[in-house]
Amino acid sequence: MTDTIRVAVIGAGGRMGREVVKMVLQDENMTLAAAVSPSAGPIDAGTMVGVKPCGVTVAADLETALSDARADVLVDFTVPQAAYGNTKTAIMHGVRPVIGTTGFTPEQIEELDKLCQEREIGGLIAPNFSIGAILMMQFAAQASKYFPHLEIIEYHGDQKLDAPSGTSIKTAELIAGVRQELRQGNPKEEETIEGARGGYYNGFRIHSVRLPGVFAQQEVIFGGFGQTLKIRHDSYERAGYMPGVAVAVKKVMTYTGLIYGFEHIMD
Amino acid sequence: MTDTIRVAVIGAGGRMGREVVKMVLQDENMTLAAAVSPSAGPIDAGTMVGVKPCGVTVAADLETALSDARADVLVDFTVPQAAYGNTKTAIMHGVRPVIGTTGFTPEQIEELDKLCQEREIGGLIAPNFSIGAILMMQFAAQASKYFPHLEIIEYHGDQKLDAPSGTSIKTAELIAGVRQELRQGNPKEEETIEGARGGYYNGFRIHSVRLPGVFAQQEVIFGGFGQTLKIRHDSYERAGYMPGVAVAVKKVMTYTGLIYGFEHIMD
Amino acid sequence: MTDTIRVAVIGAGGRMGREVVKMVLQDENMTLAAAVSPSAGPIDAGTMVGVKPCGVTVAADLETALSDARADVLVDFTVPQAAYGNTKTAIMHGVRPVIGTTGFTPEQIEELDKLCQEREIGGLIAPNFSIGAILMMQFAAQASKYFPHLEIIEYHGDQKLDAPSGTSIKTAELIAGVRQELRQGNPKEEETIEGARGGYYNGFRIHSVRLPGVFAQQEVIFGGFGQTLKIRHDSYERAGYMPGVAVAVKKVMTYTGLIYGFEHIMD
Amino acid sequence: MTDTIRVAVIGAGGRMGREVVKMVLQDENMTLAAAVSPSAGPIDAGTMVGVKPCGVTVAADLETALSDARADVLVDFTVPQAAYGNTKTAIMHGVRPVIGTTGFTPEQIEELDKLCQEREIGGLIAPNFSIGAILMMQFAAQASKYFPHLEIIEYHGDQKLDAPSGTSIKTAELIAGVRQELRQGNPKEEETIEGARGGYYNGFRIHSVRLPGVFAQQEVIFGGFGQTLKIRHDSYERAGYMPGVAVAVKKVMTYTGLIYGFEHIMD
Repeated sequence: MTDTIRVAVIGAGGRMGREVVKMVLQDENMTLAAAVSPSAGPIDAGTMVGVKPCGVTVAADLETALSDARADVLVDFTVPQAAYGNTKTAIMHGVRPVIGTTGFTPEQIEELDKLCQEREIGGLIAPNFSIGAILMMQFAAQASKYFPHLEIIEYHGDQKLDAPSGTSIKTAELIAGVRQELRQGNPKEEETIEGARGGYYNGFRIHSVRLPGVFAQQEVIFGGFGQTLKIRHDSYERAGYMPGVAVAVKKVMTYTGLIYGFEHIMD
Repeated sequence: MTDTIRVAVIGAGGRMGREVVKMVLQDENMTLAAAVSPSAGPIDAGTMVGVKPCGVTVAADLETALSDARADVLVDFTVPQAAYGNTKTAIMHGVRPVIGTTGFTPEQIEELDKLCQEREIGGLIAPNFSIGAILMMQFAAQASKYFPHLEIIEYHGDQKLDAPSGTSIKTAELIAGVRQELRQGNPKEEETIEGARGGYYNGFRIHSVRLPGVFAQQEVIFGGFGQTLKIRHDSYERAGYMPGVAVAVKKVMTYTGLIYGFEHIMD
Repeated sequence: MTDTIRVAVIGAGGRMGREVVKMVLQDENMTLAAAVSPSAGPIDAGTMVGVKPCGVTVAADLETALSDARADVLVDFTVPQAAYGNTKTAIMHGVRPVIGTTGFTPEQIEELDKLCQEREIGGLIAPNFSIGAILMMQFAAQASKYFPHLEIIEYHGDQKLDAPSGTSIKTAELIAGVRQELRQGNPKEEETIEGARGGYYNGFRIHSVRLPGVFAQQEVIFGGFGQTLKIRHDSYERAGYMPGVAVAVKKVMTYTGLIYGFEHIMD
Repeated sequence: MTDTIRVAVIGAGGRMGREVVKMVLQDENMTLAAAVSPSAGPIDAGTMVGVKPCGVTVAADLETALSDARADVLVDFTVPQAAYGNTKTAIMHGVRPVIGTTGFTPEQIEELDKLCQEREIGGLIAPNFSIGAILMMQFAAQASKYFPHLEIIEYHGDQKLDAPSGTSIKTAELIAGVRQELRQGNPKEEETIEGARGGYYNGFRIHSVRLPGVFAQQEVIFGGFGQTLKIRHDSYERAGYMPGVAVAVKKVMTYTGLIYGFEHIMD
């Protein structure tokens, strides 16, 4: 089938990687070209992710996998340490990288962009593939121009290690870039329990709630005279990112150069 | 003080009109030029709205009030039947209308625009002066391009006569203008209690909640694979519209012609 | 291991049944005694639900399965038509029924209770095993004594066939049993879009929202002078019922007779 | 009119006091017996609160006011420093105290109860007269027995000085009294912005949001396997406490002794 996009998945045994494999196997416009997982062993990729066998055996090594897979796109949801090398390897093989990992330096991004340009292929690095989360961030930034008084509340599972979440910090940065500078609250305000007012960022506050049963939710609340405006995104499961990944895989076939941020390929 | 904007208020004894009078008296860039209320009697306008006397006696008739008030702007939150006439009278006196009433026909708007152009003054008709409500509507329309599955829930006081609210219908119209057409829900869906699924509009549903203690709230909920996005505006009191009215009074001094919709004068 | 509770599961191949099988296999105080599914074929029950083989082959018939399984408890999340017969069969074998199906008549419940009493075993029929949903219903009923103005909004996936949901009707019944009778809203209220005000029940309204990405959520909103009170339960996945089922399986070992409603075995 | 309850109000010129005066004047079962405000001057109490004159001149001193007012009940929403003395004075005159101030010591409460008993009159001290807030606290405490994982988020106006709010601390205390002890969250959790995780109380967290436009709101969120339960109270204005005060004024006529906490006189 020459018309489908041939997709290689690295980190295929990880939590996100498994969802990507499933998504590729179910999308009629894609074919699984290769699945790489150093620790999974030579198992059928379909069997590994709990669907029916698909005829692709999981490979231990990206280099080998790419050499005869004729992949169009590589999807990588591994870890920051590995992603830079994987991306470079992919580009060298003429395979378009779609990377869901953070931690690239500006220099690395520039270099990878140059490599993509030379090879005349597209590429995408995106810390967030959730269309809903991206809209939430965009709307929050827009609203902060009119409502400079705001707070962010984010909710995640109780085993999460870091607070506040990466998405909430990204949101705060976007807001800080357009909001009129303002230190909110009463200057004489006092905490009788330390930390009650949340984390301070550029004049406003971020609150991190951690509870079992919650996957990933965030609300940005704006307060003005006699009114509040709320923008809230609730993410219920990892699979919720897959529609965004599918869009990226298809889109990356249509342009040249490396794009950073999923928002730039949403129409 | 020649630099302040001289504002006349018609319907000054009504619920919104009283708030406008208070706002004008408190804004250092405005002066109350006249207050009109057919039924209030010759009382001081400040006294009438519960603040200190301001030296302006409430007039019974707009024509008379405008003839010697040297007003720059007329603010009108009366009723649809009266607003067209009031607007015309204001323009004839060279007074810029800021109208918070709905019910104008396209022909009336066109005529009033022409009159403003001739007089070289600005004018504004806006069904909604709430910046938060306008952002909610704009964000909802934007989101519906990516999330065509949505429902609107609006909340008002339990004595409200009409359902759904004007704001929810306006929101629905804006969404219908950009959303990919789609009849939501299960085609075989059945109501065991009639009306449970809400009011049908262009493939989606509007729900009207009526409860004491609520002033005006609206939420637009978008559902997608593994996620929901919510945009919510809560309005707690009539006074919440005043910042928008103040913006309008100042802005209307700066352009020529009649503008329909507050969103067009937000930067 | 003589101390674990031996659990048989009927409807083991269904969506809820699979979760029950997984839960039993993971709970160290339970042993899977039998799994019944007419259509699954003679497959290992663990394999069928996507975990490792457990040595119990799925049986096609309850009677056969119970005859040599030495089960203590039967868990049934099948359909109303089958549940009565299954329950009776279980009791006849001295196996305590834990039934998550609705549709029993009062006469059937009385008869099954008598049979449990004769056999000196416990039994439970519960339309809802979600502790959170039950608390929501109890709190809503309590609050309605003080706040007789209320509306119910329930949210489910967009493929659900019936509206309003069973849980919302159950909630409405509980409220109607204790709330001072009151027809809410303005008597002259008019719908410009039919159904906007929701489904009418005993003077209040029920609204059913249907969106993809939503599993099961419900909010009961109470409005009073200057305030609102909200009680909301969000259920994110089928597995959320399992802690309640586990409680029931353990509890049913400790009493005699048939109990209707999970709330009666919560302490 | 011998059947109405004669109510004296101290602090009648304060924000809560004014609402109480208005409420008394509007309730057909109450008569305003006296209004006390040291700083208001000899103005008619009705005029002072913006309604029509009522024939009661504001007094500067409680002692004088009570000596010829034949009051049945004294309502006091002043400050902790004054409330103890006022309460004692009231009881000495045989006037039932209804006190909305906190800060009494256990010894003071005991003493005042003894005085009420001797005089054979009732009395009430209540930090919160909001029925909705009290229900929220009671439900939260009940839910915490089943869902020990919880967080509290409270919202107030941005000029509030203390965080967290008195109501949230009261809620936390009630929960701590019945919840199974548990330190929530990941033990290795780290804050990259200090305070993001909120204020620590007995193993759970309290978050204080401060925004203009908000009066007083609180949400208690419980998280469990696959579900969350939320209990939320939104208070929109000071007047929202008045139904509770009215209940208290009527109830205090029916018993003997001093009761602490409005929840004990709700049926």
